[in-house]
Amino acid sequence: MRLIRFGEKGQEKPGILLGEKKRLDLSGFFKDWNQEFWADGGTPKIEELMRSRSDSLPQVPESTRWAAPVARPGKVICIGLNYSDHAAESNMPVPEEPIVFLKASNTVVGPYDEVLIPRTSVKTDWEVELGVLIGREARYVDSVEAAASHIGGYCISHDVSERAFQLERGGQWTKGKSCDTFNPLGPWLATPDEISDPAKLSMSLSVNGQLRQHGNTSTMIFNPAFLIHYLSQFMTLESGDLISTGTPPGVGLGMKPPQYLKSGDVVDLEIAGLGSQRQRFVSA
Amino acid sequence: MRLIRFGEKGQEKPGILLGEKKRLDLSGFFKDWNQEFWADGGTPKIEELMRSRSDSLPQVPESTRWAAPVARPGKVICIGLNYSDHAAESNMPVPEEPIVFLKASNTVVGPYDEVLIPRTSVKTDWEVELGVLIGREARYVDSVEAAASHIGGYCISHDVSERAFQLERGGQWTKGKSCDTFNPLGPWLATPDEISDPAKLSMSLSVNGQLRQHGNTSTMIFNPAFLIHYLSQFMTLESGDLISTGTPPGVGLGMKPPQYLKSGDVVDLEIAGLGSQRQRFVSA
Repeated sequence: MRLIRFGEKGQEKPGILLGEKKRLDLSGFFKDWNQEFWADGGTPKIEELMRSRSDSLPQVPESTRWAAPVARPGKVICIGLNYSDHAAESNMPVPEEPIVFLKASNTVVGPYDEVLIPRTSVKTDWEVELGVLIGREARYVDSVEAAASHIGGYCISHDVSERAFQLERGGQWTKGKSCDTFNPLGPWLATPDEISDPAKLSMSLSVNGQLRQHGNTSTMIFNPAFLIHYLSQFMTLESGDLISTGTPPGVGLGMKPPQYLKSGDVVDLEIAGLGSQRQRFVSA
Repeated sequence: MRLIRFGEKGQEKPGILLGEKKRLDLSGFFKDWNQEFWADGGTPKIEELMRSRSDSLPQVPESTRWAAPVARPGKVICIGLNYSDHAAESNMPVPEEPIVFLKASNTVVGPYDEVLIPRTSVKTDWEVELGVLIGREARYVDSVEAAASHIGGYCISHDVSERAFQLERGGQWTKGKSCDTFNPLGPWLATPDEISDPAKLSMSLSVNGQLRQHGNTSTMIFNPAFLIHYLSQFMTLESGDLISTGTPPGVGLGMKPPQYLKSGDVVDLEIAGLGSQRQRFVSA
């Protein structure tokens, strides 16, 4: 099943996607794809509805905005340096355990929304990532095997980053990760049954049509189930939380010379089975 | 005005405090002290209610739990090394600009709730801090002077930290800052008119009756208005967001030898004009 949301900012409604284009409006039956929805059991209720009512559900007009496919997460947890080929490219050792940081969750926007380059920014950079949504609350999960059942779905997560804010302004990475609009999500959230092997997803990112990132989740160091097991030893992962699982090689910071985004640039992202995003970058 | 919330976890209701003990239930008039409340204008509506109805408002029974004085923030932003005497004690230079990190906002609990020492933790530490709540959204605020008007109120914020998770487990500080129950808030949120000079607040923290931290906001390096101005250049501060402004000298990590909390320990915190907290630490 593919969950989507649609409508103007602040007025998003929940729906589902049939194929890649046909969006059905489920707002008559569900309030939102939010923490309450997931905590209340999640997608089985949609399946039930679809069995009985799929013919009579209203369709979303094609021109309506695609919003992030889930409501604002309680927290967005990001994993740093989680691809072995990206670590090698960066001349960094493979981390012994996951590098974890938080991104402010008000950065989440839709997959085709404009992304704002912050005022005074000179190093706005891209990062295509596999996003993993927590369906069922996870706290001190005993094993990696048990952790997989906490996954609510997968989506493309663009972890936009400002490298000067992140690395040259003192201390932690927060300032370069939490700027407004820095986390386009979607276009859809695929439930786990849609993704036969999350460890074999090709992913790519282009800037103005030029391929910059090209990778595969097969080189991911700590996989989603391991991450849920691991993170749950430190903090409760609540229903509706998002994990952005790190980026493959090819970010602007790693180019020689480094290359960053400027107003008017267009970035395209794609992950197999999860659709594609496109954002135009504009000055804040 | 002093805002409070009361009731069991997950069922908190809004109220106000008269003096230090008399709690009035305002849940018949307001849904919660949350983002919507602040964005909708905030405390003037309470003043209006108090003028017309203060005699007939129900009182909260003394035995009812004190909850965090505000609803779960959209984000909790923390400032590191923000007291000059703490920097000196740590043999660290005074930062040139604020050190910023995020704490997961599901860490917020009430001022007298138990705090959970995470499983496998051996270095759980204390930090008394002045919490600053954003009343009015702040984005690219032009000046420090203009920033003060975005403050909704002040409260005690206990930035509980696990030093091994924070400093010895790779990468960023998140793992040691975002453990469940690691942010007791309250007992009340004082509106700015209650605090004649936020740069002259004495603050202290004791462990099992022994004074460990004793400081004053007069040695704070970057004051609340500066922090709002500064942070708003990187990200929008939304109504209901919380800033924890850093801790004065005397944390367990800085003791010789370092000293950490164990199950059964009782921690008391106090800031002038903002009341006092007490937490018993127990194993998760």
